[in-house]
Amino acid sequence: MTALVVFAHGSKVDAANQAIHEVAARVGAKSGCACVAAFLEIAEPGLPRAVQQLVERGATRIVVLPYFLAPGRHAERDLPRIIDQIRNDLRDIHKEVTIEAAANLDGHPALVGILLDRAAAVLEEL
Amino acid sequence: MTALVVFAHGSKVDAANQAIHEVAARVGAKSGCACVAAFLEIAEPGLPRAVQQLVERGATRIVVLPYFLAPGRHAERDLPRIIDQIRNDLRDIHKEVTIEAAANLDGHPALVGILLDRAAAVLEEL
Repeated sequence: MTALVVFAHGSKVDAANQAIHEVAARVGAKSGCACVAAFLEIAEPGLPRAVQQLVERGATRIVVLPYFLAPGRHAERDLPRIIDQIRNDLRDIHKEVTIEAAANLDGHPALVGILLDRAAAVLEEL
Repeated sequence: MTALVVFAHGSKVDAANQAIHEVAARVGAKSGCACVAAFLEIAEPGLPRAVQQLVERGATRIVVLPYFLAPGRHAERDLPRIIDQIRNDLRDIHKEVTIEAAANLDGHPALVGILLDRAAAVLEEL
């Protein structure tokens, strides 16, 4: 079973974390895969706990989707380190489980379309 | 003349800042408006300088597009404060210029599609 994790930074603003959970729910509904949110810091669950829960639900292949706009230190340095640690933790008891990270949002052409929509919403108020 | 500004956090990773400039160029090309990048911190130009340059190029209406995924403190608190300061600075010499902020990226349905694309790119590698 393949499962997805939307991995975001985590915010002190509870509504921002809740928004990530909602995005994860939508990705789950559209993909047909189990999909949960996880956070680097501040908010819960962290990625190790989210992965553990997915494995307990039967996931054998986990794809982490970094919810970051730019190739900064969180997606490029922190996330690989956390994934390496999770792989080490899984090796003994769940050696059938694989975990890997997808690309972050940076460079996707749809981002330009979102900005155009946001601009249009303001410009149409004229 | 309407001009747009893609407003991002700014990164120590130069490629991340360059990516914002490229997004701004694409938004400019697709919208037909002048569009530049500006940064909250770390990278240059800041929003006041970007706005000044657009006004010097003849912009009379400036729409700031916050390039943030979540309603955190940067888009919700820092940006309005900076815009208020810019309005004060413009009042004396360029009272014809208006500046306003659009919504950030949060909640746009295309974000789910981007995540699905990122997941598909990994899953197709099987």
